[in-house]
Amino acid sequence: PANAGKKAPKKSAAAKQEGQKFVLKTPRGMVDYGTEQMAVRRSVFDKIVSVFLLHGAMTIDTPVMELKETLTGKYGEDSKLIYDLADQGGELLALRYDLTVPFARFVAMNRLKAIKRYHIARVYRRDNPQMTRGRYREFYQCDFDIAGTYDRMVPDCECIRIVTEILTKLEMGEFIIKVNNRKILDGMFAVCGVPEAKFRAICSAVDKLDKEPWETVREEMVDEKGLDPAAADRIGRYVVLKGGRGCDKSAMELLKELQSDQALMADPRAKEGLEDMRLLLEYCVDFGALDHVSFDLSLARGLDYYTGVIYEAVLCGENVGSVAGGGRYDGLVGMFDPAGEQVPCVGVSIGIERLFAIIEKREKAKGTIKKSPTEVLVAAAPKGLLKERLSVCRELWDNGIRAETSYKSNLNLTKACKNAESLGVSIAVIVGASEWEQGTVGVKRLTQDEAQRKQVTVKKEELVAVLKDWIAKL
Amino acid sequence: PANAGKKAPKKSAAAKQEGQKFVLKTPRGMVDYGTEQMAVRRSVFDKIVSVFLLHGAMTIDTPVMELKETLTGKYGEDSKLIYDLADQGGELLALRYDLTVPFARFVAMNRLKAIKRYHIARVYRRDNPQMTRGRYREFYQCDFDIAGTYDRMVPDCECIRIVTEILTKLEMGEFIIKVNNRKILDGMFAVCGVPEAKFRAICSAVDKLDKEPWETVREEMVDEKGLDPAAADRIGRYVVLKGGRGCDKSAMELLKELQSDQALMADPRAKEGLEDMRLLLEYCVDFGALDHVSFDLSLARGLDYYTGVIYEAVLCGENVGSVAGGGRYDGLVGMFDPAGEQVPCVGVSIGIERLFAIIEKREKAKGTIKKSPTEVLVAAAPKGLLKERLSVCRELWDNGIRAETSYKSNLNLTKACKNAESLGVSIAVIVGASEWEQGTVGVKRLTQDEAQRKQVTVKKEELVAVLKDWIAKL
Repeated sequence: PANAGKKAPKKSAAAKQEGQKFVLKTPRGMVDYGTEQMAVRRSVFDKIVSVFLLHGAMTIDTPVMELKETLTGKYGEDSKLIYDLADQGGELLALRYDLTVPFARFVAMNRLKAIKRYHIARVYRRDNPQMTRGRYREFYQCDFDIAGTYDRMVPDCECIRIVTEILTKLEMGEFIIKVNNRKILDGMFAVCGVPEAKFRAICSAVDKLDKEPWETVREEMVDEKGLDPAAADRIGRYVVLKGGRGCDKSAMELLKELQSDQALMADPRAKEGLEDMRLLLEYCVDFGALDHVSFDLSLARGLDYYTGVIYEAVLCGENVGSVAGGGRYDGLVGMFDPAGEQVPCVGVSIGIERLFAIIEKREKAKGTIKKSPTEVLVAAAPKGLLKERLSVCRELWDNGIRAETSYKSNLNLTKACKNAESLGVSIAVIVGASEWEQGTVGVKRLTQDEAQRKQVTVKKEELVAVLKDWIAKL
Repeated sequence: PANAGKKAPKKSAAAKQEGQKFVLKTPRGMVDYGTEQMAVRRSVFDKIVSVFLLHGAMTIDTPVMELKETLTGKYGEDSKLIYDLADQGGELLALRYDLTVPFARFVAMNRLKAIKRYHIARVYRRDNPQMTRGRYREFYQCDFDIAGTYDRMVPDCECIRIVTEILTKLEMGEFIIKVNNRKILDGMFAVCGVPEAKFRAICSAVDKLDKEPWETVREEMVDEKGLDPAAADRIGRYVVLKGGRGCDKSAMELLKELQSDQALMADPRAKEGLEDMRLLLEYCVDFGALDHVSFDLSLARGLDYYTGVIYEAVLCGENVGSVAGGGRYDGLVGMFDPAGEQVPCVGVSIGIERLFAIIEKREKAKGTIKKSPTEVLVAAAPKGLLKERLSVCRELWDNGIRAETSYKSNLNLTKACKNAESLGVSIAVIVGASEWEQGTVGVKRLTQDEAQRKQVTVKKEELVAVLKDWIAKL
């Protein structure tokens, strides 16, 4: 954050004069992003959007606020984290908590039967902010969803393929995409002897297995949620099973094992879920995504609304939790539709704030953040020549070359070049009084690399061509 | 808006069951933007950002909320239009009303001495929405500002140059950039006999001259604001003066006229303002922007915080009011700085919502909106071949070609091609069972233009090369 490491906020002079307690700060849990961070963010956004576009996705935009009642009853006990607007007369409003509920509202309200959309926007949660761990009250979500009635598992698999493309494009190193299916989980719960009414509670306990050991989770099931210890033990034997990336057996092998588990296959949900999984793994082969996939019976996901496939991506090299997650939710649009009509959906949310944090750290360490978009600094030697510099800038702008000059007459050439270089500007045009009269200017490569350093004198009318050539070779 | 022309919102099935009054709508004065509108908006944003980048501007991001006290006392009587957050414990917050105050807060809080930044983001006003006229309660602002202590009028002129580049790039036709200076206005008011305490009130009356005739404005000055009628008449003789684009005399000629007005030149503010104007016009020549400029003494701008140059762009072909405006505001950052230190600023705000509205209408009329980013539809003849299509998609994605296929086995080729074409997809790859076995696929140009229509059969291993060639020639 741009204000990280700053001293405690001070009162402004105006506030002091008025004797008020005026504090210069951003709201709790929210931060400014300065130019350097935004340079990283913009490049990450661009890469992610390019993947969405590769898959023909279109974007929509919804208001940052929704009617309070649109959000009511969608987030369970997290509802207390929703930011409400003050009642200033008129409708009761709240800030969006995620992008999925507004998407479902949009699909229902516009009576869409099918849409493939991405949406990158900020959401708001009155959570306890943990700024050092990158958990804020205002943060970006980056969602891709496919709504529509289609052949089983085809759009689901495209979501997995998209995760592989994004993590590869962002050079996140090795990663695993864990997959499971709520139908398999429900079937497994039934087979283990969990009463139907406890499915969601037990599911949310299983969800903690990526952070807690089995003993703790078992305790929660038995002591807190009143599950029969024998049922918990049966669940314990299932949730250790996994196959695929990073495992001894392949995902297909685990699938076959489970499909020969007669108790499990006797449950229609489990049977259907396993058939889903077979199709999903097959399509993963067609899409070239299977290498990254692990079929993992301990994956449960927190949200209540999933109805089928669920998945979650984790990086092998970083201990940051999941960096993408999602699944199928076939019931949400129907909660908004006037006729209760369902539109099946599947989607994935990219954990963009976690990725930002990792990439920002990496780029900073490498020193590769190009802070300024400028390609060419227009400077003068020794000083002055402001109007000449402005006319050079004009010519460069007219020709689409990103150029800047100092807004001061009185500038120090060496300092200006050094400063520009530190911001990532690669070339300087140097205007000199006598050269200008002779119709020439200097062009200099700004770099620490001795081998690449050079300076030439070119005719004014050849300047644009020379610069374009140098820029193309950068 | 995506929901324009929709019927009245209906209650959802769930709400009916519960007997609640559940309404499916967006908040009053706010709208969803569908995929087609977003396609236009994205392309407009990209063009505008490319101009900012040409000038070396960097972007920042600030929270959508500010402490309530940060916004207090900045907007005069418009403060009543600010959206407050509910008091849920903790700080009192409000949604940002514009991007300028958060920018000044950012500069002061980070103790910046200089920054050139652009910021495109949404702001919030509890105004009376006029949806048919495109006035919403949530809308985008698009600001470019230069903060720092520099030679007079140089950054000011770059703002004007940026407006010319943006309006030209967006193909908005002929336009005029009206320029004036608050110092000239203040000097003129003094010379005409306006008491100092009435400067801002009289200035805001002058601001109405683009909508109201002089008589009405004079009435406001005399009857409402208690100005001596003789003073009003003297103002009346000044505010008709203009020179430059669309006028009989040039801006330079008007400047010379005013600089030989001894009464005016006796006022130090007017004298300084006219010298500013001389410099500005000179730099406009260097920047190749003078052709669009009109020096117009009736230009006043509404906001109180301007301290120098002011400008406003209007389109000659459209009667939509100003499409860009701004000026110099040297006092705002000091209102936030703990030591009251000033950082001079000049900036311009692009009226992006008005431009969107014009461009959207134009593109719709031309039928040139490419709704889908997809380049290649992967289809099958006659039906099925889902896995084959998926593997073709995979190859195209691997090679950076934007491709889609239907998520259904059972698709109608003719219908699929027609639908894709209507969304702006230009090429279809057609997979056939026997051709697939022989290692070939069909490639077809989707177009209404008979001359361009063609279909060829290519070897699978040549498909990517053929598609890249076709796409390059689109």
